[in-house]
Amino acid sequence: MSKSLVFGHQNPDTDAIVAAKAFAYFQTQKGYDVEAVALGEPNMETTYVLNHFDEPAPRVVKTVSNEVDHVMLVDHNEAQQSVSDLDKVQVNFVVDHHRIANFTTDSPLYYRAEPVGCTSTILTEMFNEEKMEIPAKLAGLMLSAIISDTLLLQSPTTTDADREAVRMLAEIADIDVQSYGIAMLKAGTNLAAKSDKELIDGDAKSFDMAGHSVRIGQINTVDLADVLDRQAGLEKEMQAEMAADGYDLFITLATNVLNSDSELIVAGEPKAAVEKAFNTKLDNNRASLPGVVSRKKQVVPPLTAAFEA
Amino acid sequence: MSKSLVFGHQNPDTDAIVAAKAFAYFQTQKGYDVEAVALGEPNMETTYVLNHFDEPAPRVVKTVSNEVDHVMLVDHNEAQQSVSDLDKVQVNFVVDHHRIANFTTDSPLYYRAEPVGCTSTILTEMFNEEKMEIPAKLAGLMLSAIISDTLLLQSPTTTDADREAVRMLAEIADIDVQSYGIAMLKAGTNLAAKSDKELIDGDAKSFDMAGHSVRIGQINTVDLADVLDRQAGLEKEMQAEMAADGYDLFITLATNVLNSDSELIVAGEPKAAVEKAFNTKLDNNRASLPGVVSRKKQVVPPLTAAFEA
Repeated sequence: MSKSLVFGHQNPDTDAIVAAKAFAYFQTQKGYDVEAVALGEPNMETTYVLNHFDEPAPRVVKTVSNEVDHVMLVDHNEAQQSVSDLDKVQVNFVVDHHRIANFTTDSPLYYRAEPVGCTSTILTEMFNEEKMEIPAKLAGLMLSAIISDTLLLQSPTTTDADREAVRMLAEIADIDVQSYGIAMLKAGTNLAAKSDKELIDGDAKSFDMAGHSVRIGQINTVDLADVLDRQAGLEKEMQAEMAADGYDLFITLATNVLNSDSELIVAGEPKAAVEKAFNTKLDNNRASLPGVVSRKKQVVPPLTAAFEA
Repeated sequence: MSKSLVFGHQNPDTDAIVAAKAFAYFQTQKGYDVEAVALGEPNMETTYVLNHFDEPAPRVVKTVSNEVDHVMLVDHNEAQQSVSDLDKVQVNFVVDHHRIANFTTDSPLYYRAEPVGCTSTILTEMFNEEKMEIPAKLAGLMLSAIISDTLLLQSPTTTDADREAVRMLAEIADIDVQSYGIAMLKAGTNLAAKSDKELIDGDAKSFDMAGHSVRIGQINTVDLADVLDRQAGLEKEMQAEMAADGYDLFITLATNVLNSDSELIVAGEPKAAVEKAFNTKLDNNRASLPGVVSRKKQVVPPLTAAFEA
């Protein structure tokens, strides 16, 4: 088979970058010609991780059909979260831990999804199934991705498989999970260094919910006040993006990664769907969601259900 | 988790029935409460297989949401090939070897697809990965499904993984693959016993192609003349089903399983898409397709491409 590119979603987080590198390594060992690339620059947390393990950032691409005929996706499958010319190439492999939606192929493919906390956990299992050794540096990167996606195994998305992968990867990489994990999460939440636009863009993804275009971003912090003090500026940027990109509803979820509480900031309509989804009332376009840390598990499903009701 | 049902596609073939039984066994061993059911009665080939291994046919269901909240799919994922009330339940597990289309979930799930010849091949790998033993009777059933889907490893969908699974399952079941396989395939092609309507219905599946509703059936035979002599009657039944169920195009593929040649019989429009897909001209609504035996790999992809061009 000719060369493939492997990549994670737009606005890459640590798992999107690392899972692409890990799957590229895995597939290269299996004899495929694969290059890990990214659909954006690494964020602050990922930059900390790459620096820590002395690993280069992947090449950033805007399109892929100018280079290859087929691609491999990690950490996503929905077309609107992927590369802009995805419809011009064949998807041969997917490794993911999200719902399946807005994804279609003409031919059979390899698809591996599990409802676990992180793509790198599934990849750890795949290395084990193949009895393929994980190099120490790659183990450190994969460990970082799981810490990132599961917020140090505190997120409700965390499963026994994630805990087992962390145990195994930490041993291979010889890393103290708690101290490294807190340093890494703090490095990722240096909000003062970011503009309002960077904050709402950082991790945002688009979803189609019953015909409505819904944009949902998440800002991780160690102090919610750091985000909420900037509400006016954030709302202004959300409104500007809605006008520019045609979103109906824009939700920014501010999450305290240390105590697992979130606050919603909502722009656009229908706000009633948000209130219904979370059984709450918005006050000043805001609502508190104690115990909510996972967009995928605690925000998208109830909101989708509220739209479809 | 409460009880789940596991089932293959409508118009079940041997893999649809057997993969449900195999995955139900696998998941039961893992501690789930699972029952294998079917969306239709076993065909002649499957009946031969079940009798040979003294295995009961699965219970046939028309709906599932009256019994369970969540289901597991094998050997299919497209909603129009599944149970009629699929939208009323949650899909938690899929094991399949087809393209992914018209499939969407609200939540993350376990999804395992590989571009191999048979779902039972993937299940064999899953048993191996879990180091779970396959009972001899189940191995015989799974072996039969692979022989059925790959036409005794002759279909172009056949991969090294299918050959390796057949080798392993035949050893566990203590079966001579060639002699058993030919007897089984012949048992499945006793066409004289079937009406014209039964022939076009037997294995037919629906596909959405660029907004057109396309029905594609396949009739396996050991002598093409047995099918072609009945063309007039078959076309009449195809026209009747198109009128009743709103299909735009109905294609029946008659395949000689012993020498791997097929003949198309086409009803409805656009016939030009069929001619373009296979670079042929229809004569008396028919065309010869030498070397074509796989609907999934040799019919659906070029036809989809012709519709989308």
